[in-house]
Amino acid sequence: MSSQADLAPELLSELAALLGDRVSTAAIVREHHGKDTTFHPSHPPQAVVFPESSDEVCRLVQACTRHRAPIIPYGAGTSAEGHISALHGGVTVDMSRMNRVLRVSPEDLDVTVEAGVTRKQLNRFLHDTGLFFPIDPGADASLGGMAATRASGTNAVRYGTMKENVLSAAVVLPSGQLIRSARRARKSAAGYDLTSLFVGSAGTLGIITEVTLRLYGIPEEIAAGVCSFPSLAAAVATTIGLIQAGVPIARVELMDELSMRALNAHAKLGLSVAPTLIFELHGTRSAVAEQAALVTAFAGEHGGDAIAWQTRQEERNRLWQARHDVYFALLAQRPGSEGWPTDVCVPVSRLADCIDETLSDLRSCSLPVAILGHVGDGNFHLLFAVDPSKSAELAEAKDFNDRLIRRAISMDGTCTGEHGIGYAKLDYMELEHGGAVAVMSAVKNSIDPLGLLNPGKVIG
Amino acid sequence: MSSQADLAPELLSELAALLGDRVSTAAIVREHHGKDTTFHPSHPPQAVVFPESSDEVCRLVQACTRHRAPIIPYGAGTSAEGHISALHGGVTVDMSRMNRVLRVSPEDLDVTVEAGVTRKQLNRFLHDTGLFFPIDPGADASLGGMAATRASGTNAVRYGTMKENVLSAAVVLPSGQLIRSARRARKSAAGYDLTSLFVGSAGTLGIITEVTLRLYGIPEEIAAGVCSFPSLAAAVATTIGLIQAGVPIARVELMDELSMRALNAHAKLGLSVAPTLIFELHGTRSAVAEQAALVTAFAGEHGGDAIAWQTRQEERNRLWQARHDVYFALLAQRPGSEGWPTDVCVPVSRLADCIDETLSDLRSCSLPVAILGHVGDGNFHLLFAVDPSKSAELAEAKDFNDRLIRRAISMDGTCTGEHGIGYAKLDYMELEHGGAVAVMSAVKNSIDPLGLLNPGKVIG
Repeated sequence: MSSQADLAPELLSELAALLGDRVSTAAIVREHHGKDTTFHPSHPPQAVVFPESSDEVCRLVQACTRHRAPIIPYGAGTSAEGHISALHGGVTVDMSRMNRVLRVSPEDLDVTVEAGVTRKQLNRFLHDTGLFFPIDPGADASLGGMAATRASGTNAVRYGTMKENVLSAAVVLPSGQLIRSARRARKSAAGYDLTSLFVGSAGTLGIITEVTLRLYGIPEEIAAGVCSFPSLAAAVATTIGLIQAGVPIARVELMDELSMRALNAHAKLGLSVAPTLIFELHGTRSAVAEQAALVTAFAGEHGGDAIAWQTRQEERNRLWQARHDVYFALLAQRPGSEGWPTDVCVPVSRLADCIDETLSDLRSCSLPVAILGHVGDGNFHLLFAVDPSKSAELAEAKDFNDRLIRRAISMDGTCTGEHGIGYAKLDYMELEHGGAVAVMSAVKNSIDPLGLLNPGKVIG
Repeated sequence: MSSQADLAPELLSELAALLGDRVSTAAIVREHHGKDTTFHPSHPPQAVVFPESSDEVCRLVQACTRHRAPIIPYGAGTSAEGHISALHGGVTVDMSRMNRVLRVSPEDLDVTVEAGVTRKQLNRFLHDTGLFFPIDPGADASLGGMAATRASGTNAVRYGTMKENVLSAAVVLPSGQLIRSARRARKSAAGYDLTSLFVGSAGTLGIITEVTLRLYGIPEEIAAGVCSFPSLAAAVATTIGLIQAGVPIARVELMDELSMRALNAHAKLGLSVAPTLIFELHGTRSAVAEQAALVTAFAGEHGGDAIAWQTRQEERNRLWQARHDVYFALLAQRPGSEGWPTDVCVPVSRLADCIDETLSDLRSCSLPVAILGHVGDGNFHLLFAVDPSKSAELAEAKDFNDRLIRRAISMDGTCTGEHGIGYAKLDYMELEHGGAVAVMSAVKNSIDPLGLLNPGKVIG
């Protein structure tokens, strides 16, 4: 494997011959591509390339493999665990120019896109078809990156994660060969489920260049509502009750007081500064009315206030955009800070305990920290606003995260519900998976024996 | 790898020491375990063992691996592509005594069962909880076997297949080590998706000894209805319209005239002998009423007759049991015959074409053949009733199946929607998956380098 210093000049020449001016070694470009949206420091690659087709990806991967250069796929740069850090140098493959929607079939409720298409771009494209793609991690991530990290987000409680919504992927292997993980049938029992193997592999097994995704009809009615509670525990209890009653909520997002203060400051929504749930309901008009009545009843039992349901798209969009901006709004309250987001997920029956023990632990925390999350799945985030130049702050956040992860795993949960392992959570793989880690390593070695694909991620 | 003749006496002694009288070499037991429910001839193993715990499975696998004996997992014996054939002899591991429900969590809507628990046993166990497990391949298969074959069946159009409904599996590797593929959180982005890798691997990567499954609340209302159509094409067009309109049908099953005749003869239901759809709708009372109105309207547009919706459980059970018995009812109409079920699945937009071209092809068929299927997924079966002693009949069915599979794959479909590859469809792996087959082989070799686990299946 190359070290940071020695990308072969011949490789650069080959890449330039292949891609022309779509190869960059400019410091600012390299620096940008080595840093994600969190506190992780930049680990820049030695070069960044911008392919425009799967065929170009095949050829550039062949060149990198021939020269034993690490290959790091890059979507929109919105991952959170150092997935895109070029820990061992090498070539970052920026997929943003592969941004075409290749086909859409309203009859089959599916679409095939190049990996660089972002989720918002796709939904704009789909607008006139009456269909939409529901997975929404907040950021306007690329769909290839979302597949690679097995992303989910606010809609997962009803529509699942990328695991359930990628039907097939085109993948370039370390050899430079292009394969398709599956055909386009809705289901198949033909051999191993390679689609699911590549989804969540974070570029360590191959570079996803195209994905075929499930689509859904835009519901006849969509209603969003905000509900304040006397305590976080009351909000969590409401969520658990609704999930256990099987109410098919599309989204249910928990926000604590600090998050609400930031949200108000950012978006001028004038909402109560209290533990809050934001709901969204999808269905026919009567189904949404039924669900809304159940939500109101459950919330009321736990001291939630009245909910003014919003069905107009502009109002709903404003609310969700504000929710998605909370990350940056929180950081804006402490100029110079960067985010350290945690990401545990536990069985819903343990969510109240997990949040409760975490709140106790946080009493001694000296850092600004907000709690928010996709509680319908048992997934919640702490967001620490840290000054990355202060090692004591990083150490404090690290310790809280460490205890949180051990707590979640002891409750049969996971260290990461949706962000992934990247390199930052490698230490928890053994704790979470035990002997299964050796199986993952064997799979990695069988597909990428030279260890060139996104080295240092997922598998240590 | 052992040939049929040479199972080591030392291995038999070790197995007897481990399992006592739960080791059998009786011809009738071996014969029974070498044959599935179709025309495939029996390939008996040299011994059959009946473990009662994951620990026993670990130990017996260690013994088999030490002696290089093939290991063939066996659930309820209801697979369809020779999955359980001991092609190279060896030891069949009958999981039927591992039939305990280990835990259930109504709060988390999940359950953990040993691999030998059958789907009907589980649903009887769950009855008082108000929950159910929806995946229903017809036969009363074991849940371990359903996971191993990535089964689906009549409810998949709404609830997905085993792929979407197995949260985690305990798996014994060829080394005898027991691993868990994932923890119990509803979602996780921690490393490779081993659960999905083992689901559908047909015992070629490990022996599944426990599965944790998603459960669902029993709907407030369930309505089933039967609708006759003037032609198969009209029934298919109705299905496609409903799926494309996003109507959340729980089941929609196509049956042709021959199937209906057999169903009537078997179950005395007195239904019209015509191309037919059987529907089932799940939801709240008002949601089911909405769906029923849509189904009636779509069916009416295509010449379907009036639907008498049945909401009483006994009537619904009678209907579905009859549907599930069609396979044997059809064979009963030709004494001495055995079934050759085909299993293609295509994108729903191609379903009408695929069935139409298949009907044209079948005009020259000399064998009794019925058409039935889970058309909401684009999955349908031909059922040939063949006399397995007549090679000309087997050759004719093989040729029709061959053309059908090539037709489906040319439509971006799969050679198997739910039955799996076993050994009988190995020839189509390359056609369907191209270069991806080499990735599957690499994965197989990395986990089972000695090739002892269910050899000759899935990977050639």
